[in-house]
Amino acid sequence: MPSHFSYKHRVNFYETDMAGLVHFSNYFRFMEETEQALFLSLGFSLKMKEQGQTITWPRVATSFEYKSPIHVEDLIEIRLLIEHLGEKSLAYRVEFYTNQKLAALGSCTMVCCRLKKEGVIEGIRIPERIRKKLSPYLARRKSSA
Amino acid sequence: MPSHFSYKHRVNFYETDMAGLVHFSNYFRFMEETEQALFLSLGFSLKMKEQGQTITWPRVATSFEYKSPIHVEDLIEIRLLIEHLGEKSLAYRVEFYTNQKLAALGSCTMVCCRLKKEGVIEGIRIPERIRKKLSPYLARRKSSA
Amino acid sequence: MPSHFSYKHRVNFYETDMAGLVHFSNYFRFMEETEQALFLSLGFSLKMKEQGQTITWPRVATSFEYKSPIHVEDLIEIRLLIEHLGEKSLAYRVEFYTNQKLAALGSCTMVCCRLKKEGVIEGIRIPERIRKKLSPYLARRKSSA
Amino acid sequence: MPSHFSYKHRVNFYETDMAGLVHFSNYFRFMEETEQALFLSLGFSLKMKEQGQTITWPRVATSFEYKSPIHVEDLIEIRLLIEHLGEKSLAYRVEFYTNQKLAALGSCTMVCCRLKKEGVIEGIRIPERIRKKLSPYLARRKSSA
Repeated sequence: MPSHFSYKHRVNFYETDMAGLVHFSNYFRFMEETEQALFLSLGFSLKMKEQGQTITWPRVATSFEYKSPIHVEDLIEIRLLIEHLGEKSLAYRVEFYTNQKLAALGSCTMVCCRLKKEGVIEGIRIPERIRKKLSPYLARRKSSA
Repeated sequence: MPSHFSYKHRVNFYETDMAGLVHFSNYFRFMEETEQALFLSLGFSLKMKEQGQTITWPRVATSFEYKSPIHVEDLIEIRLLIEHLGEKSLAYRVEFYTNQKLAALGSCTMVCCRLKKEGVIEGIRIPERIRKKLSPYLARRKSSA
Repeated sequence: MPSHFSYKHRVNFYETDMAGLVHFSNYFRFMEETEQALFLSLGFSLKMKEQGQTITWPRVATSFEYKSPIHVEDLIEIRLLIEHLGEKSLAYRVEFYTNQKLAALGSCTMVCCRLKKEGVIEGIRIPERIRKKLSPYLARRKSSA
Repeated sequence: MPSHFSYKHRVNFYETDMAGLVHFSNYFRFMEETEQALFLSLGFSLKMKEQGQTITWPRVATSFEYKSPIHVEDLIEIRLLIEHLGEKSLAYRVEFYTNQKLAALGSCTMVCCRLKKEGVIEGIRIPERIRKKLSPYLARRKSSA
C-alpha cells in the first residue's frame, strides 16, 4: 500500500515577512527540507555517491498553491507523496497542514544527474538502489487516471 | 501596444547553494523583487494606502520552470508581463534571461486585499488608480486564446 | 547551578553556499532559532503579550566567530547561556558544536520593548515573569571576573 | 588619500520580518553584497583564479551593531573601508546609512585561501595583484591609534 512520508517544521521568526506570515518563497525551502529528510531516512546522503559518481537532482519545475496563511511558531505537518518515478526523473507533491487544516499544496519535478566534471552535469537513469527505496512512497495510479 | 516591464538582478554569493548554482527558491524572490520594482516605478509603495486602507497582495499560486542554470555574478534580465487583471486578482509571468538565453519561466497569481484589522485581511476590488497604471503591462489577449 | 539551554539544528541544503559550506549569515538564524526554542520551552510566545502589551526584542549587537566549517546534513549542537540580564537588556552567547568539536561562537544583545503603536517601539523593564524564567540560564559570575 | 567604497541596496519585501523591519541576519548579506561589488569593480571574480588556483575567502569573524531600524523600500547607502590588509587576512568595516542617518555598523575579518582539493582549503598570502587593488580602500592608520 502506498503511503506518504511525514515531516514536521516549526516556523521560525526569520521565516516570516512584514505581512506577519511565512514568506511564500520559504514554502519551497520547507518542501526541499522534507525531501532531504526522506532521503536521509532511506540512508541516502545529499552528497550521494553511487558507484563512484556524485549524484545531484536539479529541479525542472516547482509550484505552490497557498490555501491559508502560516504563522510564526506554527507546526507545519508535511506529507510528501511521489507521483512519478520515471527513468531519469522524479516528481512528487507535498501537502502542508497546520491545525489539521490544509494550508498549501506544492509540487516538484527533478532529474537524476551525475557530476561529469566541476560545474557540468549529465542526466542518468535513477540508480536501482535508490529507485527501490523510493517506490513505497509512490502514489498508486488510479485506474481512471 | 502591450509591453513587458524590465528589471535586472546581479546574483549574489549568498544566493547560491552547494551545487554551485542559484538555489531554486531564490527565483521566487527575484520574481517578487521585479514586481516590487514595477510597483515602485508606478509610484506605488509596498506599504500601499488607498483611501485610508492598507493594501496587501497575498499570493494564491506561484511556479517556476528551470531551463538552464544561473551562476554567481550572472546578470539576470527579467521581463514581467501581466497575464490577467481581474476584478480582485492579478496574474503575471516572468522570463529570466542570462546571456540572451532563456534561463527560467515563472508565474504568480495574487489577490488584492485590505487589512481589516491586525492579522485579518479581506479581498477587495483592485483600486481603479492601480488598475490603470498596471494595464500597459497587460499582455494582449490573442484572438485564438 | 546555572546551566545552558541545548538545541539541535540539522543543516539543510538551502543553508549552504557555493563554497559547499553553511553560509556565514545563516549562523545568525540558527542563533535566533535557539533563542526562540528557549522562549517556547519556557511557555513564552514570540508574539508575547504581557499585561496587554506586545513585547518585542530588537537586537542591539550580534557577532560570530567561525572556528571550523559546517556542512550540509551536519547536526549542530547549540548551547545558549545568558551572560547579562539587565533592567531592560538581555545578552547571551551561543556555542555551536559539530561532532563534539567547537565550530562557532556567537553573541547577541537585545532590548525588551513594547509596541507603542504600529511601527513604534519603546524600551521597557523586562517583565518579572520573564526575568524569573530566564534566570536559570544566567551564567554565574566568576569571582575573578 | 584613503577612501571608502560606496554601494547601494534597496530593501526587498522578502528581507523583512514580522516585526516590519529588515531581519538582522540580512545585514550580513548586504555586507557581503558590498564586498562582492567592490571585488567586481576591481575586475576580480568571486570565482577568482590566480596562477591557476581557486581563491576563496572564508570568514573568521563578523559582527553588527544596530543603530536604527531599516524598512522595506529604504535605500541603504553602504560605505566599506578596509581596516587591515595583513599577509593572509583582510578586515573591513561597513557603515549603513538610511536618509543620511547611521543605521548600522558592521565588521568582517576573512582569510585568503586556495582550494587544495575539493572541500579542503589552505591559507595563502594575499596575491600581490589583489593586495594592490584593495589598498586604496585601506583606512589610514591614525597616529594616535
